Amino acid sequence: MFKNLTVQEFVDELSSKKATPGGGSASAVVGSIGVGLISMYCEITAKSKKFVDVKEDMEQQIEFLTAFKEKCLVLADKDTEAFNEVMAAFKLPKETDDEKAARKQAIQDATKQATEVPLEMVAAMVPVLQLVPSLIKKGNPNALSDLQVGMEMCYTAMSGAAANVEINLPSIKDTQFKERVEEELLHHNAAAQKAMDEAKSLFFPDSL
Amino acid sequence: MFKNLTVQEFVDELSSKKATPGGGSASAVVGSIGVGLISMYCEITAKSKKFVDVKEDMEQQIEFLTAFKEKCLVLADKDTEAFNEVMAAFKLPKETDDEKAARKQAIQDATKQATEVPLEMVAAMVPVLQLVPSLIKKGNPNALSDLQVGMEMCYTAMSGAAANVEINLPSIKDTQFKERVEEELLHHNAAAQKAMDEAKSLFFPDSL
Repeated sequence: MFKNLTVQEFVDELSSKKATPGGGSASAVVGSIGVGLISMYCEITAKSKKFVDVKEDMEQQIEFLTAFKEKCLVLADKDTEAFNEVMAAFKLPKETDDEKAARKQAIQDATKQATEVPLEMVAAMVPVLQLVPSLIKKGNPNALSDLQVGMEMCYTAMSGAAANVEINLPSIKDTQFKERVEEELLHHNAAAQKAMDEAKSLFFPDSL
Repeated sequence: MFKNLTVQEFVDELSSKKATPGGGSASAVVGSIGVGLISMYCEITAKSKKFVDVKEDMEQQIEFLTAFKEKCLVLADKDTEAFNEVMAAFKLPKETDDEKAARKQAIQDATKQATEVPLEMVAAMVPVLQLVPSLIKKGNPNALSDLQVGMEMCYTAMSGAAANVEINLPSIKDTQFKERVEEELLHHNAAAQKAMDEAKSLFFPDSL
């Protein structure tokens, strides 16, 4: 599991000429780092005597964020597994007609799974981003830059995951599946953009 | 050293209520992940028979990128050390006038160092981003999404580091230092933005 590699080992694995881990797993780890920073902002708020009124609220948010932080690390592994399945399917025998049909089906199934995993990552970032505007209003202003940096990382992780959904779509023949994925992606993107715009108007009110 | 922590340990350290590691170190690790992905794109190109003409070129870029990937991991540690020094300076005794003056000086010195480190991180991302447009043109199109995701991560890492420079500037009294840092930041931001715009026009030519 990637979460058990050291940071050095992970970045070295990433840089290697093997196709996995690639952009999907890297995005999931960056998402986990982003959620971690947002969580730290909540921890710093919760421990401050000045913010005793929101202590309980912050503790709830930390629990919520911790689940997403862990989910990202799970998705980092799932993304690599899914991509490895696609590559394995391409290597199936294709001598007889039966083999050709089985290989074609295996490629389709594996590609769908390799689309579902980054889509799940996109979906995981939305509620985290939606939480940010309320955190800006409630939390400790001394740690706002950590919240802002964490948010930007979650957004980058989401975009990276979305790019990995999009590169798979043209290979998928099941139009119903494609339409469902495209619709979900649009929906998540719109929700994330709305949350980002609201957060930015609070971080940088002067730029409005 | 953060590079020797597991990914899980790093994100857990980040999430904790301790102020370090914070946004600066997190940005440096994300930068290292981004550079790692760009490096993987070069590796995938270098190993492909179709791209034998650029093999040597790619190998040079990989060497260049590896140095920056490692530099980011070094800066992740330096950022936390620098911030810890600021916190230590604030805890110095302030009973006598001499103590007060020494503490004031220590806070200024430590804050300057805590500004220099993320500025170094900002500067480190510029040549990496400037490399991307030529890589898009020369490399293996099958791995373009990894290059794109890596670039976005480097840009986010740079912005995160820049935010950490900016939060320190108001506390610094040395106006010459401040002006120099502001000027460098503007210069790096402009260079990065130019590289990003060029890369995006190549990634998404239709959106022009």
